[in-house]
Amino acid sequence: MRLSFCCTDTTPEPWLQGLRAALPDATLELWQPGAAVADYAVVWAPPQQFLDEQTGLKALFNIGAGVDALLRLRLPPQTRVVRLDDAGMSVQMAEYVCHAVIRHFREFDGYQADVALGKWSYRKPRRRQDFPVGVMGLGVLGQRVSRALAQFDFPVTGWSRSAKSIAGVQCFSGNASSNGFNGFNDFLAATRILVCLLPLTPDTENIMRRDTLARLQPGGYVINVARGSHLVDEDLISLLDSGQLAGATLDVFRTEPLPAAHPFWLHPKITVTPHTSARTLRDESIAQIAGKIKALENGAPIASLAGVVDPKKGY
Amino acid sequence: MRLSFCCTDTTPEPWLQGLRAALPDATLELWQPGAAVADYAVVWAPPQQFLDEQTGLKALFNIGAGVDALLRLRLPPQTRVVRLDDAGMSVQMAEYVCHAVIRHFREFDGYQADVALGKWSYRKPRRRQDFPVGVMGLGVLGQRVSRALAQFDFPVTGWSRSAKSIAGVQCFSGNASSNGFNGFNDFLAATRILVCLLPLTPDTENIMRRDTLARLQPGGYVINVARGSHLVDEDLISLLDSGQLAGATLDVFRTEPLPAAHPFWLHPKITVTPHTSARTLRDESIAQIAGKIKALENGAPIASLAGVVDPKKGY
Repeated sequence: MRLSFCCTDTTPEPWLQGLRAALPDATLELWQPGAAVADYAVVWAPPQQFLDEQTGLKALFNIGAGVDALLRLRLPPQTRVVRLDDAGMSVQMAEYVCHAVIRHFREFDGYQADVALGKWSYRKPRRRQDFPVGVMGLGVLGQRVSRALAQFDFPVTGWSRSAKSIAGVQCFSGNASSNGFNGFNDFLAATRILVCLLPLTPDTENIMRRDTLARLQPGGYVINVARGSHLVDEDLISLLDSGQLAGATLDVFRTEPLPAAHPFWLHPKITVTPHTSARTLRDESIAQIAGKIKALENGAPIASLAGVVDPKKGY
Repeated sequence: MRLSFCCTDTTPEPWLQGLRAALPDATLELWQPGAAVADYAVVWAPPQQFLDEQTGLKALFNIGAGVDALLRLRLPPQTRVVRLDDAGMSVQMAEYVCHAVIRHFREFDGYQADVALGKWSYRKPRRRQDFPVGVMGLGVLGQRVSRALAQFDFPVTGWSRSAKSIAGVQCFSGNASSNGFNGFNDFLAATRILVCLLPLTPDTENIMRRDTLARLQPGGYVINVARGSHLVDEDLISLLDSGQLAGATLDVFRTEPLPAAHPFWLHPKITVTPHTSARTLRDESIAQIAGKIKALENGAPIASLAGVVDPKKGY
């Protein structure tokens, strides 16, 4: 069995070492143009040439949860894409989002500014029932984030295309892009702190824009940990500057690294982090991919694996 | 039934209004010197004169979880002190501590400093198994904090005088002040991030000092949300400056407000907040105290109430 590794922006040696240890019977190759056709591949942002040449793949493993960039390439017909399924990412997302929600709710930035001035002063405690948190996207990551938030007694709502049921979370569903589906608007109206964990698809691109963000409760707050293209940058800035929204924590951007001249960098109501909310963890990812390859080699149908991408849905 | 209210640093009107609504049959009075002897009292930092005069109290309700300041006064013999039992404080503590732990573990301060310079750069993800969190004090607050931390997959240990059992938390017990009890040292050696949620008693005063903090794992971190006198200030600063400890988040201080000249204010490895980790919530506190008074009036024995202080233990 031949396994090809083609990951840009990744140091290959530790991955190759780990995959070799986990799959000792595989012929493992760092992909180069013209390489032999492999049975499986592990990729991150591969060049189009890789996909044009690798026409015999039984499965293409993406070392991330989002496959929007991969699906914009021309894939060989019948290629099944498998994305990471948690692999240590959901706990990182829960940490990142809970940290951002608590920082905002408890006004820790304000306290830090006071303390920098040597000022000891209390703020009136806020009522958590006034800060309902809404999570868009209820896959593995969204579900874990929702449960983590509910543990801090925030009212938590969730929205996803297909109906979900999560203990302690009020779930809405429906399509955001069509008329006649009120679940999304109801979800926005019930939300003050909005968390985006959606896959990026034609349906979800620009989903956070002036008219949708304006439906949030007054003093709304935006946390984007999905993709930069979910958010219309200038609409966010305009709603922050008018005072309709209170702030935002953004980990993802339309162009990454965020360009030096972008107004997000220095906006006083925006916290920027460099796409670090949930990093791919090498050991967990190798173990997961190796386990899936072994299952396939042992005759498991690909549909039985977690994380198989439906190309029509885009996730 | 006569109820006296004697809380310094507190605006009395909304408390009196709430207590009146919850206990319509009570004769409710804002205490003044020479007032009639009451059956119950609601206090925060009362003057000694109040205690000298109020010799008929069936129960003295403290509107906080810590009673160390109250117990330093001379109480009338047989006065039973009842402290708040959660009343909305445990979720605030869980928020505060989880926020501080995640901020440190995920290096969000470092990212924020980078971003202020327009710098987009990744740090190598840390392994959470390298950051075991140890919680000292496993009462209502400590238990909730421990469970909240465990949810983020940190290894969590706990230490308390009497043995406790909490799902997902490795519990140590024993006395910190005597020789021959190894539970406390084992707990410290198993801990990198130390959270103090202890009551302040003669046994726990100065519990965080050079020799105990030096037992933490390298790169230790201190979070104090209990009382300032649990910590020897100069020992913390010396261990931070030598690099043995990595940092601290402190919400409580020996003198509050923290004096202007205190080195904690501007220390680069210390985050200060103005005793805001868990504030007394008026509505929850009134409901809890009124419920306890009604239970006593209906003949419940005082020992059946949650939060009755054992004066020998000091909590």
